[in-house]
Amino acid sequence: MKRIAVLTSGGDAPGMNAAIRSVVRIGFSRNIEVIGVRGGFRGLIEKNFNPLLPRDVSGLLEKGGTVLLTSRTDEFKSEEIQEKAIENFKSEHIEGLIVIGGNGSQSGNFALSKKDFPVMGVASTIDNDLWGTDYTIGFDTAVNNAIQAIDKIRDVATSHARSFIVEVMGRDRGFIAIDSAIATGADIVLIPEVRFDIGKIIKNIKEGMEKKKLHHLIVCAEGAIHARDLEQIIKSRLDIEIRVSVLGYIQRGGSPTRFDRIIATLFAERALTELIQGGTGKVVGIKDNQIVLIPAEDAVTKQKDINSSLYKIIEEVSV
Amino acid sequence: MKRIAVLTSGGDAPGMNAAIRSVVRIGFSRNIEVIGVRGGFRGLIEKNFNPLLPRDVSGLLEKGGTVLLTSRTDEFKSEEIQEKAIENFKSEHIEGLIVIGGNGSQSGNFALSKKDFPVMGVASTIDNDLWGTDYTIGFDTAVNNAIQAIDKIRDVATSHARSFIVEVMGRDRGFIAIDSAIATGADIVLIPEVRFDIGKIIKNIKEGMEKKKLHHLIVCAEGAIHARDLEQIIKSRLDIEIRVSVLGYIQRGGSPTRFDRIIATLFAERALTELIQGGTGKVVGIKDNQIVLIPAEDAVTKQKDINSSLYKIIEEVSV
Amino acid sequence: MKRIAVLTSGGDAPGMNAAIRSVVRIGFSRNIEVIGVRGGFRGLIEKNFNPLLPRDVSGLLEKGGTVLLTSRTDEFKSEEIQEKAIENFKSEHIEGLIVIGGNGSQSGNFALSKKDFPVMGVASTIDNDLWGTDYTIGFDTAVNNAIQAIDKIRDVATSHARSFIVEVMGRDRGFIAIDSAIATGADIVLIPEVRFDIGKIIKNIKEGMEKKKLHHLIVCAEGAIHARDLEQIIKSRLDIEIRVSVLGYIQRGGSPTRFDRIIATLFAERALTELIQGGTGKVVGIKDNQIVLIPAEDAVTKQKDINSSLYKIIEEVSV
Amino acid sequence: MKRIAVLTSGGDAPGMNAAIRSVVRIGFSRNIEVIGVRGGFRGLIEKNFNPLLPRDVSGLLEKGGTVLLTSRTDEFKSEEIQEKAIENFKSEHIEGLIVIGGNGSQSGNFALSKKDFPVMGVASTIDNDLWGTDYTIGFDTAVNNAIQAIDKIRDVATSHARSFIVEVMGRDRGFIAIDSAIATGADIVLIPEVRFDIGKIIKNIKEGMEKKKLHHLIVCAEGAIHARDLEQIIKSRLDIEIRVSVLGYIQRGGSPTRFDRIIATLFAERALTELIQGGTGKVVGIKDNQIVLIPAEDAVTKQKDINSSLYKIIEEVSV
Repeated sequence: MKRIAVLTSGGDAPGMNAAIRSVVRIGFSRNIEVIGVRGGFRGLIEKNFNPLLPRDVSGLLEKGGTVLLTSRTDEFKSEEIQEKAIENFKSEHIEGLIVIGGNGSQSGNFALSKKDFPVMGVASTIDNDLWGTDYTIGFDTAVNNAIQAIDKIRDVATSHARSFIVEVMGRDRGFIAIDSAIATGADIVLIPEVRFDIGKIIKNIKEGMEKKKLHHLIVCAEGAIHARDLEQIIKSRLDIEIRVSVLGYIQRGGSPTRFDRIIATLFAERALTELIQGGTGKVVGIKDNQIVLIPAEDAVTKQKDINSSLYKIIEEVSV
Repeated sequence: MKRIAVLTSGGDAPGMNAAIRSVVRIGFSRNIEVIGVRGGFRGLIEKNFNPLLPRDVSGLLEKGGTVLLTSRTDEFKSEEIQEKAIENFKSEHIEGLIVIGGNGSQSGNFALSKKDFPVMGVASTIDNDLWGTDYTIGFDTAVNNAIQAIDKIRDVATSHARSFIVEVMGRDRGFIAIDSAIATGADIVLIPEVRFDIGKIIKNIKEGMEKKKLHHLIVCAEGAIHARDLEQIIKSRLDIEIRVSVLGYIQRGGSPTRFDRIIATLFAERALTELIQGGTGKVVGIKDNQIVLIPAEDAVTKQKDINSSLYKIIEEVSV
Repeated sequence: MKRIAVLTSGGDAPGMNAAIRSVVRIGFSRNIEVIGVRGGFRGLIEKNFNPLLPRDVSGLLEKGGTVLLTSRTDEFKSEEIQEKAIENFKSEHIEGLIVIGGNGSQSGNFALSKKDFPVMGVASTIDNDLWGTDYTIGFDTAVNNAIQAIDKIRDVATSHARSFIVEVMGRDRGFIAIDSAIATGADIVLIPEVRFDIGKIIKNIKEGMEKKKLHHLIVCAEGAIHARDLEQIIKSRLDIEIRVSVLGYIQRGGSPTRFDRIIATLFAERALTELIQGGTGKVVGIKDNQIVLIPAEDAVTKQKDINSSLYKIIEEVSV
Repeated sequence: MKRIAVLTSGGDAPGMNAAIRSVVRIGFSRNIEVIGVRGGFRGLIEKNFNPLLPRDVSGLLEKGGTVLLTSRTDEFKSEEIQEKAIENFKSEHIEGLIVIGGNGSQSGNFALSKKDFPVMGVASTIDNDLWGTDYTIGFDTAVNNAIQAIDKIRDVATSHARSFIVEVMGRDRGFIAIDSAIATGADIVLIPEVRFDIGKIIKNIKEGMEKKKLHHLIVCAEGAIHARDLEQIIKSRLDIEIRVSVLGYIQRGGSPTRFDRIIATLFAERALTELIQGGTGKVVGIKDNQIVLIPAEDAVTKQKDINSSLYKIIEEVSV
């Protein structure tokens, strides 16, 4: 291979820039020309291509978001569009593609590789919901962002002896919620994967009040229940001062952590190495502390389980 | 004076702990016994008093919130309650009080001082809306919190070429909104003090889109319009990708900045000095870079103006 | 078991407080009384014991350092001292001990367990140099601290087109240096485990200058060479503006990260569970993403290898 | 005026980029073409000029350092060089210059304005040592950086009951030292402006030890005494565990604070306005909370005094 392309797709995640930098720098070391596709799969169709040299990616390790921009992947489901993309690559002598992104984005990886265009994926989404990998690029930073925000909210909770419901990201999965809850000492966590029992929550809070707990902290994933709705339910049942905070997009941005910068650098290196050696239709992730290759089909179709021992410890620590 | 009390009241603000520490430590230096009142004016009525020694306030400079806890001030408007408070002080040989708080809290200062109990106030509220002082303790930290959050949101905005409306605190006043807007390069700021023209906002965004601006950032004070409502209005008039973030309580917590730690230390020193020397019914603030005394009555009744030159510069910088 | 003790020992590490909290809270859940030993092994000899209840450890998750204080472990090597410690435990009906610390501290674990007193260890040191565990509590935070510092230094380097040598902690091992170097895009890393060739370093910098690199960043572990010495060597061979920064103790403090808070909570839970079930002379760590038990003897005598693939990638990415 | 130039000079300071952005954006609003000079006064001589448009300065508010790069100002003292600079400006139809920098840099302002070339200065240096202004751009961020570092060191100090000497920047002036000391609760501060009495320091520490203070924190400006030297002196007189930390360049970098972003925006606006209206040989600063103009000659020749009330309060608070 002489020339490959790289794109970021789906929700942006801190560390995507570190992965782009790694592809460009290591590609250059190995005499591969790297073309940046601007705007995700859309840029692929619009042929928004720009060559990237080592100096173009200086300073990117510490930068949140993605300098290649990103977009939704919906329209890329059409086979016609996929063929157009491959045509665009061929007309520019681009022989392979690296897709940095999460679930939806790796569907594009799967689709193109089925059409015999070589593609390797790099697992990157703050949601950490990709099958086959313990971590995805961006998750560690997102949870650290959430933790720092909740630490601030705890100052307010403590000063006013006031309880709080904090809503974190996670439409379908509770990974961010669970880690944030343990790391901030939440009393209760609500995630989409586990049906919750409102009676038990009320009982838990009541018992805490009897034990003279000055405040309670509930962390809920947006996909379990909206914080506002939970607030209404609790207030209808208990005479308690309770406030709501929806963390939102601050979880998604910011300078990536050690963990995300390093796995981004390693994932990208591996994706490039595999692509050169003829690999395709796979996603690079990390499993049991080893860099691994996941079939793109599995990554996008199978469901990753939450860590139930993490989930269970929350109750025991919040005595 | 031999023995005084100190309390924090109203919304908690970063730097309140630094002010408590300063009262306790400097009181000790000057042979004044300092009694901490727990839970604001409510603790005063419930006689929730604890003596504080220098070692009790170690490590407080960097701590957000208030270790003395705080509460709303509504019930303290009753004269009966006020007299009960003075009685409680007298029974414990407490000869003066320092009230750390904002608008509502300094009404308590004014009320007690009118009844001839010596009180000095320390201007502290993240809202910065106290007449007679350029800054109140907590404002600088709150805006820095808002800025760091908006910097993260900007990563998302840039990566997706998506506009954002960020709602900051400020029910009646736009101080946080204006400073956050300038410091993050917002294109538009909406504050309660200035009627806004929705037509002009739409025109501004349209012109930006024509100039190929990839995204717009609007900062609004909660008291001007709720971000969700503004989002609906804009979407009904423009075909634009726009998202909302309500920063909420994360503005209020966290470790105080240089500015807040230092003014907290200085305000408290001055309040104590004045109290000992017979001062009462005043609030310590900072005006034109000098520590000043503001009559409590003025502080709570007069309205502080926004800085219109700051407000005007936003438009010019957002070209 | 009805009553156990917990202590922190050796260099303090962010997350030690989270581990203490986890022992106390989970102990309480399981009807085990937990006694805090103040000041490490020294406190054990001086019988500096205090019972800890769930409310005593509130707010500890986010707090750096160790509230139980710590001390060097040298004098604990004497058998007489060890027997005195066991005697002290027996006189207070303490039936087991949890030791939170690194290498030297787990020697104490090994010594006491050999004398048939039940001890479990929790792997905690910023240096990450404990055999049998991929990570120790405190390492992730320390490297993130280093990264944030180096990101700031990079602003200065870039603005002045000036090279920098940054010295990080690590007397015997290069774990902090390697991770910091990859995560900040250092051009060169020097670690105690690998003999470096000064000629190659000079050549590397010269080539960078020819490629119009505006500045170089060298990260060295204190145990490889002191930054000041390296500066002298480089300046004697090259006409280059170079500056030195020794990060020092700022790496060690500060609020722990997600990773350290969570592994601290899990390690402590496991140590307690094992201790109750009769385990002794082991250290809890994490290997291949699973919580594991390491024989204390191995933990303190075997040498953990650096990750050579991480080490190698630095050169390739710094083109 | 149709076309002006802007440069940053001397030590880089957080907020310089915000000032550059403000000049470019507001210049554009007012139909002034702005030329960026790369590399400070050196770039002026080498004619390293590039036009800057509003989009070129996007994202600069939050960025530390200076994208225009900077250099020492020594060689610019030659009149010949100064005349060469003016010639370069004239050949490019540049009619005025804005100099963003501190003491040394404003000497260049003074020199060129004496030769009838219109120049306005913007006060920017982390040292805050410019006469006529209460604050310079970068100081607030530098002290906040120092504070966050010292807060981390305090975790270590507390955990080990170990004293610390922290050396901060300030070769000639103690502004950073004084503010850092108050904000972190240092027991002792040493600054170049005040001769210190080593006997008094020893006595102070001894008394603290008698009062059961677990540790002492000394903040010294590099220009008062080097921390290593002070360590030797103290250790020769007292049996005390003491450690040293030299903060160094981490003070200088990083994302600017609210205060620095805002004064940078305002200072630059005022400098531009004055330049257009015929002003020259002045430096924009802030005095008593008002934006002011300082004659460049005064700014570079007169000595700014430290705030003695701040200095005095340190002792009283450290009981």
